[in-house]
Amino acid sequence: MTNTAETQYPILDVLASRRSPRAYDGDATLTMDDLGPAFEAARWAPSANNLQPWSFIVGYRGDDVHAKISETLSGFNADWAPAAGALVVGITNTLTASGRQNAYARYDLGQAVAHFSVQAQANGLSVHQMGGFDIDALTVALGVNEPQEVVVVFSVGKAGDVAALPEPLKEREEAPRERKPLTEVVR
Amino acid sequence: MTNTAETQYPILDVLASRRSPRAYDGDATLTMDDLGPAFEAARWAPSANNLQPWSFIVGYRGDDVHAKISETLSGFNADWAPAAGALVVGITNTLTASGRQNAYARYDLGQAVAHFSVQAQANGLSVHQMGGFDIDALTVALGVNEPQEVVVVFSVGKAGDVAALPEPLKEREEAPRERKPLTEVVR
Repeated sequence: MTNTAETQYPILDVLASRRSPRAYDGDATLTMDDLGPAFEAARWAPSANNLQPWSFIVGYRGDDVHAKISETLSGFNADWAPAAGALVVGITNTLTASGRQNAYARYDLGQAVAHFSVQAQANGLSVHQMGGFDIDALTVALGVNEPQEVVVVFSVGKAGDVAALPEPLKEREEAPRERKPLTEVVR
Repeated sequence: MTNTAETQYPILDVLASRRSPRAYDGDATLTMDDLGPAFEAARWAPSANNLQPWSFIVGYRGDDVHAKISETLSGFNADWAPAAGALVVGITNTLTASGRQNAYARYDLGQAVAHFSVQAQANGLSVHQMGGFDIDALTVALGVNEPQEVVVVFSVGKAGDVAALPEPLKEREEAPRERKPLTEVVR
């Protein structure tokens, strides 16, 4: 995969080459053995008071969970994401051990998914996180109940042929990756 | 550093060896050149609609910002964290471009700080994230205004001598790292 991040300071290749692709190999299948290292990485993420508020539901292409997730995807996501070997739902526990709102519930889930993505990238798998899905429908379909909350869906799979994507997606896929300048981010 | 994560599946060494230490070298100084790669890594984290809601304020030991952050730390944090060469405040923009609440503001800041931590670890720096600080006092002290929100403080520095920590901290530092079993995290 080209399109590596442009950096002023050198960063790990696994971070520089990580991106959120839309082209998946629709024939490649995955098992828990393929995803295990990435879930281990998520599991060992840090969290406030080590509460580890994250949990995950995995669907593999062809199974019921993958179909349920696919059905709730919005817009373009519904076109490209179902080709991924796995679709994963990221869930957070919104409460602390003493029953208060955990201000770091989403923050820590974000950290865990970031660790997942970095490890997946190292294992030759592409991750694309999505906020574009029907959160209420997915919550019901998967039977997620308070204080657990569905936050994110992400696709995981082997990279596919960008040229085979329909035009608006192909163009996005080939566009340079962009970020705000470092001087805007740090002071 | 020993005390590497116990994993059922192999993960990158930079993830397995990452931890949140409390023993810093109180003489080692840092500059932006030392933190640059970690901030680059944070900058290239993914975010919902590429909004990149994160920003950071850095204090270096001896400067005004480091002192302001140190003064707002709670409990044990006030004992060990000020020895770190840098204290960083993680801030998120709570609104989207169209002025709505960004449901992924904290989630994406978490991802950016996770990327920061991984890169820092690779560069021989230790990161310890904290929620234990006076958020209102720090918000005022640094002049952070809505829709920007202070979320987290983290220390960055060269590892120090664990044996020199006071007893309750020393014990925590040497305790094995623990996480929920993978079967509880993924289904």
